[in-house]
Amino acid sequence: MPPVISLVGKPGSGKTTLLERIIPFLARKGYRVGTIKHHVHAFEMDTPGKDTWRHKQAGACMVALASPSGLGIIRDVPSDPSIDEMTARYFFDADLVITEGYKRLCLPKIEVYRSAVHASPLEKPDETWIAYVSDVPLSANIPCFAPDDVDAIGDFVINRFLSSQPSQSSVLLVDGRPVPLSPEITASLLSALKESCGRLSQKAVPSEITLLIRNVCNPQQ
Amino acid sequence: MPPVISLVGKPGSGKTTLLERIIPFLARKGYRVGTIKHHVHAFEMDTPGKDTWRHKQAGACMVALASPSGLGIIRDVPSDPSIDEMTARYFFDADLVITEGYKRLCLPKIEVYRSAVHASPLEKPDETWIAYVSDVPLSANIPCFAPDDVDAIGDFVINRFLSSQPSQSSVLLVDGRPVPLSPEITASLLSALKESCGRLSQKAVPSEITLLIRNVCNPQQ
Repeated sequence: MPPVISLVGKPGSGKTTLLERIIPFLARKGYRVGTIKHHVHAFEMDTPGKDTWRHKQAGACMVALASPSGLGIIRDVPSDPSIDEMTARYFFDADLVITEGYKRLCLPKIEVYRSAVHASPLEKPDETWIAYVSDVPLSANIPCFAPDDVDAIGDFVINRFLSSQPSQSSVLLVDGRPVPLSPEITASLLSALKESCGRLSQKAVPSEITLLIRNVCNPQQ
Repeated sequence: MPPVISLVGKPGSGKTTLLERIIPFLARKGYRVGTIKHHVHAFEMDTPGKDTWRHKQAGACMVALASPSGLGIIRDVPSDPSIDEMTARYFFDADLVITEGYKRLCLPKIEVYRSAVHASPLEKPDETWIAYVSDVPLSANIPCFAPDDVDAIGDFVINRFLSSQPSQSSVLLVDGRPVPLSPEITASLLSALKESCGRLSQKAVPSEITLLIRNVCNPQQ
């Protein structure tokens, strides 16, 4: 699945502004970037009065707005969705996923710090911190970039996460929870799946395969 | 995958209003309803100025807003997403999907007609039409309900699509396109997957399994 990194920092440090500058840099280089914003307050994304909003208000558990250029999905979830599940299910075709927030998760982190707003960066950075973006020099064992040095920040991300050919990856979700999958089982599944695909066409090897099985306990008669 | 039905009708006939009445009826009976609105004009769903909107404007191909109660995903698509792909990927845990629009697709259709607005229903109904909801009686070989008779419309939908125990279903998407999967291959895949799950826990049989394999052509070293 695509690599995931997290932009962290105190409120008002400039995380979204930095994202608005890094995303175009990566997009110009041809990378498909996805973002995940963590939000702990009341959820709202749609525009009141629109048809999808009306469906959701009426009690639909999930609504989609589908068009030839864009797709939007809004759905209930029983609890905070895991990064693994979101990445696998919804960001399967991204090259890189950048999250805003999630500072407690074990993700590689770039902290954004603005001395004009806060007296210090976040406390207790650990080994998941890989760089700072700060308006003043910081003494740390990891790279520290100036907020305006977008090219250097972007190149750092590319070299660290995007420079090698993406290798095959597989994720197994069981009732939404990731479950380890051994390379042997992946290989045998892939072989069975290729047999299924091969019957249909002799085209090039596909880049992405998704298999969904629902109501596992009720086999068809 | 969940059954899909489509509400069709001329503009202004009352499709969204009917949905707003059927969804609560089905939700009260315990069914998880998803809806898909087809939209052929410029795509917009998010609220200008919000962080996810800013990420998308900056060039992210896909953005998510994740919270403990709701999840929103907005993404670019290369062309109109198919109902099969949307249902399998995003509505895997719905009991029923109701679409608004898609009158040209081969889906079971309920046409909404309002004589105060239009002189006649849609032309050329075919064998995919299963009912009318109309403010005047229509002579047709299929049931015709009054718009206020929400209970009867809801019971019709339940009897036709939701009364039997949902049986096991599987979908294989190859680069996003559904590919037929034989029952034998499903069974052998399921057996391999269960082996993988079984190592982890002795819990009850899961209800839903998703397997994603990416960069199929670049096996890991």
